[in-house]
Amino acid sequence: MRTIRIALVQTNPLVGDLAGNRDRIIDAIGQAKKLDADIVAFPELAVTGYPPEDLLLKPQFVKDNLRTLKEIGKATTGITAIVGFVDTDKHIYNAAAVLDSGKHVYTYHKILLPNYGVFDEYRYFKPGTRYPVLLVNDAAVGISICEDIWFDHGPTGVQARAGAEVVININASPYHKGRGNERLQMLTDRARENKVNITYTNMVGGQDELVFDGHSLVIDKKGVLIAAGSQFEEDLIAVDIPVSGQPHIVPLKERGKILGSRPGSIDYVTLAKKATGKKPLLPLRKPEKPLMVCEEVHNALVLGTRDYLYKNGFTTAVIGLSGGIDSSVVAAVAVEALGSKQVTGVFMPSPYSSKESEEDAYALAENLGITILTIPIDQPFDGFLNALRPVFAETATDVTEENLQARTRGNILMALSNKFGWIVLTTGNKSEMSVGYATLYGDMAGGFAVIKDVPKTMVYEVAECCNRIAGRIVIPKRVMTKAPTAELRPDQKDTDALPPYEELDPILKAYVEDDRTFDEILAMGFDRKTVERVIRLVDKSEYKRRQAPPGIKITPRALGRDRRFPITNRYKSY
Amino acid sequence: MRTIRIALVQTNPLVGDLAGNRDRIIDAIGQAKKLDADIVAFPELAVTGYPPEDLLLKPQFVKDNLRTLKEIGKATTGITAIVGFVDTDKHIYNAAAVLDSGKHVYTYHKILLPNYGVFDEYRYFKPGTRYPVLLVNDAAVGISICEDIWFDHGPTGVQARAGAEVVININASPYHKGRGNERLQMLTDRARENKVNITYTNMVGGQDELVFDGHSLVIDKKGVLIAAGSQFEEDLIAVDIPVSGQPHIVPLKERGKILGSRPGSIDYVTLAKKATGKKPLLPLRKPEKPLMVCEEVHNALVLGTRDYLYKNGFTTAVIGLSGGIDSSVVAAVAVEALGSKQVTGVFMPSPYSSKESEEDAYALAENLGITILTIPIDQPFDGFLNALRPVFAETATDVTEENLQARTRGNILMALSNKFGWIVLTTGNKSEMSVGYATLYGDMAGGFAVIKDVPKTMVYEVAECCNRIAGRIVIPKRVMTKAPTAELRPDQKDTDALPPYEELDPILKAYVEDDRTFDEILAMGFDRKTVERVIRLVDKSEYKRRQAPPGIKITPRALGRDRRFPITNRYKSY
Repeated sequence: MRTIRIALVQTNPLVGDLAGNRDRIIDAIGQAKKLDADIVAFPELAVTGYPPEDLLLKPQFVKDNLRTLKEIGKATTGITAIVGFVDTDKHIYNAAAVLDSGKHVYTYHKILLPNYGVFDEYRYFKPGTRYPVLLVNDAAVGISICEDIWFDHGPTGVQARAGAEVVININASPYHKGRGNERLQMLTDRARENKVNITYTNMVGGQDELVFDGHSLVIDKKGVLIAAGSQFEEDLIAVDIPVSGQPHIVPLKERGKILGSRPGSIDYVTLAKKATGKKPLLPLRKPEKPLMVCEEVHNALVLGTRDYLYKNGFTTAVIGLSGGIDSSVVAAVAVEALGSKQVTGVFMPSPYSSKESEEDAYALAENLGITILTIPIDQPFDGFLNALRPVFAETATDVTEENLQARTRGNILMALSNKFGWIVLTTGNKSEMSVGYATLYGDMAGGFAVIKDVPKTMVYEVAECCNRIAGRIVIPKRVMTKAPTAELRPDQKDTDALPPYEELDPILKAYVEDDRTFDEILAMGFDRKTVERVIRLVDKSEYKRRQAPPGIKITPRALGRDRRFPITNRYKSY
Repeated sequence: MRTIRIALVQTNPLVGDLAGNRDRIIDAIGQAKKLDADIVAFPELAVTGYPPEDLLLKPQFVKDNLRTLKEIGKATTGITAIVGFVDTDKHIYNAAAVLDSGKHVYTYHKILLPNYGVFDEYRYFKPGTRYPVLLVNDAAVGISICEDIWFDHGPTGVQARAGAEVVININASPYHKGRGNERLQMLTDRARENKVNITYTNMVGGQDELVFDGHSLVIDKKGVLIAAGSQFEEDLIAVDIPVSGQPHIVPLKERGKILGSRPGSIDYVTLAKKATGKKPLLPLRKPEKPLMVCEEVHNALVLGTRDYLYKNGFTTAVIGLSGGIDSSVVAAVAVEALGSKQVTGVFMPSPYSSKESEEDAYALAENLGITILTIPIDQPFDGFLNALRPVFAETATDVTEENLQARTRGNILMALSNKFGWIVLTTGNKSEMSVGYATLYGDMAGGFAVIKDVPKTMVYEVAECCNRIAGRIVIPKRVMTKAPTAELRPDQKDTDALPPYEELDPILKAYVEDDRTFDEILAMGFDRKTVERVIRLVDKSEYKRRQAPPGIKITPRALGRDRRFPITNRYKSY
């Protein structure tokens, strides 16, 4: 049996760090050579990082990316590297370079461009129309990029019918909860319907609101998963894929039939001879059991936080600890991301703060081994009340004074950030951010919103997971059992303003993530008045979300670029 | 000579206000009928408002828009209305309904979808492939939507070759400085190259960061401008356009030649008989001289501010008055938008505030006839310093204390907003926002950033314009002549941290708006160190801009959705 050896490399590039990304790629090419791989595949846009967004509109950036690719090309003696980069003529393309033994022999242009959710690829790229089949040692290999493989009308079928026995698909596929299963199912379908082996190489790492989870996959032509890369970590896996040794090259005049109504061409590209088949087969690394959902979420939060900080030059973080579940989980994640010496907690009591809150904040800090400061807010808060007294003379106390407390805390954290270079991690969860139960410039003030896309009910699951992973109590039990409160007035509870989270979260999922109609949400069994109130709160708090710090996408629809809502909007669906 | 009478209606819709938008349209149909118009044309997506953004992903919203269109259709007895709406089958389309004497007789789907700048149309819409020519009283009329007319390969040529003598193009075309000239030039080209009359109907009003400036245009087939709607105001204009009376209908078998490589079809649509030609011609309203640039900008700021506030339920605003040019211009704009009784100024002195600043703030308030409050920041500021003293014990005074002052002011304004329902208008200009010379949660705190896209040098021009339009000194002379300062430490000047604005602004334009390379900017004659510094400041302050309030797009590339930059970004172009 003949085989072709393909290495899949999960790099963690940094957007715009062309030299660093180049070095990472060249280093991995060296590793792949040591493994005698015939072909080594890197993620989509591995040269630039993904997504480079409007950097792509800068001609100098595109030029610099081409120069970087050239430098990478020189490192490919004796091996073929498939490397994601930005190609250009009078347009630009999301492209895969075929770098073969020191030469750039072919360029593939992504055909299917995603332009939904977090993706804006039509903003930048022109779609390709050519379907390459690489011939290496008489093995036939198709290449494609990310979205290309998600649809049965995409290039996979064309390439398989044109003789490809393996399709190398390179990706920058962002994580969301359950994404792994969707990918596996899709790749299984694609492999089976085309009787083709597929290698799916994914990027790893955090980039602003996105986390790429790695978890590269190799599926054989029967649709069986035969190898998988690590989740949420850089990795290199190499597999030997059986090939016939005699690929069928479709004669020129028959290619039109394969293309059907598609414009473009099928391109056969002969690569330099490789050492395939003359070496002993690699031992197959059995795919590990995928992570459980709450571990997935936990790891995404840790990686997303670490990468946002490190890639932006931060090594230390500060978190306002209220003794509640949200700030506890954020602190636990921060410690895993950065180490306990790098995280400072701040307890900022007011007259409404309970003894329990203080105890819980301190217990958490002790469990995590982090420094905790206590900075009471009374003096600046009283200062505000005094300054405003003449103007507020005839008014009653209301939400203004609650917001002032939250904003005083926000200012204290920002002052610590300014003075000591600590980034402020905010602690709002998705349930709160969805309904606007948060104070702009108060608890929303900070550089990164770790659990912004984690609904409150899931925050509890992640908390349990933190304790399970640590193998001990990190987040105190009482934090998980007491009723959530903002402690901005006496005896306040979240449920004064909001439905219980067990009710709120499914309504939010239906409305925000699934675009269910009002009647559909009612039909799920919720109270009409409650649903109306939740929808109204979501709609009218868009202005707050627009000024929120970025946070990690965890669900299929996050509250960032994933959901683009007008602030000015009088639509009423109820 | 036979003529066809077309009315162009510049409505100011509110996104999502389907009932309100319907009423506006039905009202204007009534007016057009009184003018004996044969056809009345409304803006692009007049039913939903533009851009509805992710509301379009809600099936219920699309359904409600269809129901609204049906209600509008009933009002079209004796007239044809071209109305922008969202059509749907299994996809959705940016569409124009042809409503003819009570019936919905044809639906056009926009063919060219913009997906650059502020536009995301590929996120939602599928492009159309059909080219209608309406036949009304033997006149032949093409219809198209916005982007469709901007390119010589678009539908205008197809429709003209298919016999159209007039093309009705409906728009939601956002304002930017100089946009009017670009449109006029483009429409002149399109009319001449196709020997076709063009009516260009544009939306008017503010929607979040966009202002639609109206200024509908009618161009005859020689490329001469014969009528124009008001700039920045709702308007209805009606024109009689000469037609041959015997349009040439291209035989079916010859239509393929006109379509060329385009898929799709040419559709002739016969409308109900109208009263064309039996009525005396309308007197032609001569196009007014377009506004000067600084008036354009001024009017865009006023309309954008008024509509953002009114459409979001605000009628009153509060502005921190520093005695400087930025807050003075914002206050002047706010007064024009809302009236002087609706605007409150707040002077918030610190020990670093000069006597001149106070005098200038008070002079401005008097000139504008607005209430001004003085709220010193000492007490809350000292409260912060006291609270932080134990933690800051061993540290030197630095930017932390400056930011604390700015944030104390931000908190005071937000407290006034919470207590009295006034929206806070922020006063940062584009130069500051570009280089991050602003304090998050401090001077950046507020609901709307009026001059966010106005470079500092242009702020002075707008100030002059405010005085000229008022016919008296509104913004005191000294405000325009003194050196800009943040007054956060003794003797501070903006030029301590930044190059002079006369130098900064052209560098920013080259880098931010024009994507010039580093070498190109140097070649403009700027100092290398200065250019490096400016680029570095722009790149590293993206995180601040991401948390800024929305503001009005004034330049070809604003700092909102118009420019989508990664925060995490290590690209260095110098």
